[in-house]
Amino acid sequence: MSALHRSFLHDFQLMSRNGGLDSGGVERQAATAADGLNRQWFAGWLAARGATVHYDEIGNQFGTFEIHPGAPYVLVGSHLDSQPRAGRFDGAYGVLAGASVCSELYRAASAGELELTYNLCVVNWFNEEGCRFKPSMMGSLVYTGKLELETALATEDVHGVTVRDALDTLGQRGTESIPEAAAYVEIHIEQGKSMEENGQTIGLVEATWGARKYEFRVTGEQSHTGATLIEDRKDALLGASLLIAAARRIALEHDVITSCGELLILPNSPVAVAREARLLIDLRSPDAARLDAADAAFAQEVTKAASEANVEIETLSRNAWDVKNYAPEGVELAEQVVQELGLPYTRIMTLAGHDSTNVKDVMPAVMLFVPSHKGTTHNEYEFTSDQDMLSGLDMLIGVMTRVAKGELA
Amino acid sequence: MSALHRSFLHDFQLMSRNGGLDSGGVERQAATAADGLNRQWFAGWLAARGATVHYDEIGNQFGTFEIHPGAPYVLVGSHLDSQPRAGRFDGAYGVLAGASVCSELYRAASAGELELTYNLCVVNWFNEEGCRFKPSMMGSLVYTGKLELETALATEDVHGVTVRDALDTLGQRGTESIPEAAAYVEIHIEQGKSMEENGQTIGLVEATWGARKYEFRVTGEQSHTGATLIEDRKDALLGASLLIAAARRIALEHDVITSCGELLILPNSPVAVAREARLLIDLRSPDAARLDAADAAFAQEVTKAASEANVEIETLSRNAWDVKNYAPEGVELAEQVVQELGLPYTRIMTLAGHDSTNVKDVMPAVMLFVPSHKGTTHNEYEFTSDQDMLSGLDMLIGVMTRVAKGELA
Repeated sequence: MSALHRSFLHDFQLMSRNGGLDSGGVERQAATAADGLNRQWFAGWLAARGATVHYDEIGNQFGTFEIHPGAPYVLVGSHLDSQPRAGRFDGAYGVLAGASVCSELYRAASAGELELTYNLCVVNWFNEEGCRFKPSMMGSLVYTGKLELETALATEDVHGVTVRDALDTLGQRGTESIPEAAAYVEIHIEQGKSMEENGQTIGLVEATWGARKYEFRVTGEQSHTGATLIEDRKDALLGASLLIAAARRIALEHDVITSCGELLILPNSPVAVAREARLLIDLRSPDAARLDAADAAFAQEVTKAASEANVEIETLSRNAWDVKNYAPEGVELAEQVVQELGLPYTRIMTLAGHDSTNVKDVMPAVMLFVPSHKGTTHNEYEFTSDQDMLSGLDMLIGVMTRVAKGELA
Repeated sequence: MSALHRSFLHDFQLMSRNGGLDSGGVERQAATAADGLNRQWFAGWLAARGATVHYDEIGNQFGTFEIHPGAPYVLVGSHLDSQPRAGRFDGAYGVLAGASVCSELYRAASAGELELTYNLCVVNWFNEEGCRFKPSMMGSLVYTGKLELETALATEDVHGVTVRDALDTLGQRGTESIPEAAAYVEIHIEQGKSMEENGQTIGLVEATWGARKYEFRVTGEQSHTGATLIEDRKDALLGASLLIAAARRIALEHDVITSCGELLILPNSPVAVAREARLLIDLRSPDAARLDAADAAFAQEVTKAASEANVEIETLSRNAWDVKNYAPEGVELAEQVVQELGLPYTRIMTLAGHDSTNVKDVMPAVMLFVPSHKGTTHNEYEFTSDQDMLSGLDMLIGVMTRVAKGELA
């Protein structure tokens, strides 16, 4: 095992202690104490390896390794925040792998073993998960100009704490100018099971799936669960339940992916019919026609649910993302690397959102996957083997070397 | 308007300020600061009128008016706690009406205008609503020996605060011996709309509706809302939603009342499929056969929902209450009073649970209703007119006088 491999595995163990659970998982929701601790630990790791640590105004954390003063940077990274009771690989693997590769290439370039065109920068995007503060991918949305900084900073968690206050409490909201970047590279666990089942070690992400995301407010009327006649009820929780059940029926009929991850109920008291429910539902598919058909069918179900539960259902927001490609030159560059390494690989689409889905729209981006055991993810028993992590690291070194030499942009 | 009527309406306005909302409603969940404030206010009201205030070990608040030292008491009362964003009448009307009647009869007996056999005691049962601490009717359950004191005291709210700590914080958990009671009287708003629609001012409650109450735990597996294939999901929120939708279908098919008032979801994060959901569902009916049929049909739906959502559904608790009568002598006694007063009345069943549904099992109890405008309840816009409240007060004086003379027990 190479020194880089050894130190990566050791560092990954150390990082996983920050916000670590007994199960081996982690809980580091964005800008909580555990996330702050891990970000601080990571800043120390970077400084110890000669990087300069910067924070931009939305709390994205950058570690720059400067080789040619004034030259643009190649960005590599992912996110260190996690879901509640989550796995230790999602996001964190990509950040530490990117940092390890930057550090190694910086050492080699400084020692004259390697000639690079660009500088190197690892990034830890703030709040990719979107569980404490919505929306997800907040840091990369602000970075790419898709979300207003002020809107993001004013976002509140369920306790009314804003992103601004949470970052300031950690002392990790910055004002620093963002390194000028020429290209972006990210490696991540697949979060699906197809690569493991097909014996593929590396995934070359070609495109994102399309998605329709809805936020609904169901308005009913608070009343007594016993004394109010069924025909007089305006039960917001029933309305929400009908939407959730309908979304699943549509997923099966139209062969799309659907889910409701969050449902808030007021007052959620054992003997009160709910006056209000708010929920997020999404539909996803790699096929635009299927997605449109499912979207249309779901709109009818919304009307039906409102009438059945005798409630009002408002669509507070509705976002549509179409299937979108990553730069084909990036996929080809990565394919050359994986073939040189002789690793089993596949071209693949991503069902999950990643920071690269935002960043790819403003610069060429390469997105790589390593396998997830059984596809288990957003779960403390998420697992990727050391061997797969190290194959990913080798892959990332190869890709980063070429990109930093100017072969992509 | 009599002095008693005038002072009752004034006092009711004063009481409604404690935990009052701008809408005219109140929020005084059990043993919160607002409930504590109101209980303290009520203790002052009682002391000022010559009552002695006692607290038993579960925080039931008693105001005793002693006429014949050593004689048993007639208990009258209801509860001062409320649902979140609730009306000012539910429970509070009955406590203040009972206290006003006790005070008036005590004055009359002390002045030699009236000869009573029993002493008088008003009671404010602790935590009837069951929203902050489950189960509902906690104070009367413990009083009647149906719930262990220690179990009740150890009950936690969602923040982990126990009933014991909440009562101790208010300084309102007592150790005092409970007055020996011969009979119980309670007046309450109907919480349904039938009396208003039929022009009836007084309801004589003959029986409770039957109920089946279930607490379910749905166990799924936490995973990614986007990346996890539909066929691999074990979505606890979907399982819960299917149960809620099924309960409503059964209510319509079998002509019973059903509801889910509370649903807890873990982790309830926008991009995580829920690993667990806990929910309360009940079925209610005045007809035992309909209730049994609905119960059997629902059991099949539970199995179906578990299979459809690919989750495990455990029934954590299942309580069955059959239709149960109030003492017929009490209904007859109250009927004589209402006929003497010449008020329009009806015999009625109660769909809602009340403290009297517990107390009636250990001593003769009389339960009276006054109308609720449109049946609106567990809602800040709950309303009962002054005239109806005062008719109820007259009714209560008549009933209490007879019961305190020993005509019921």
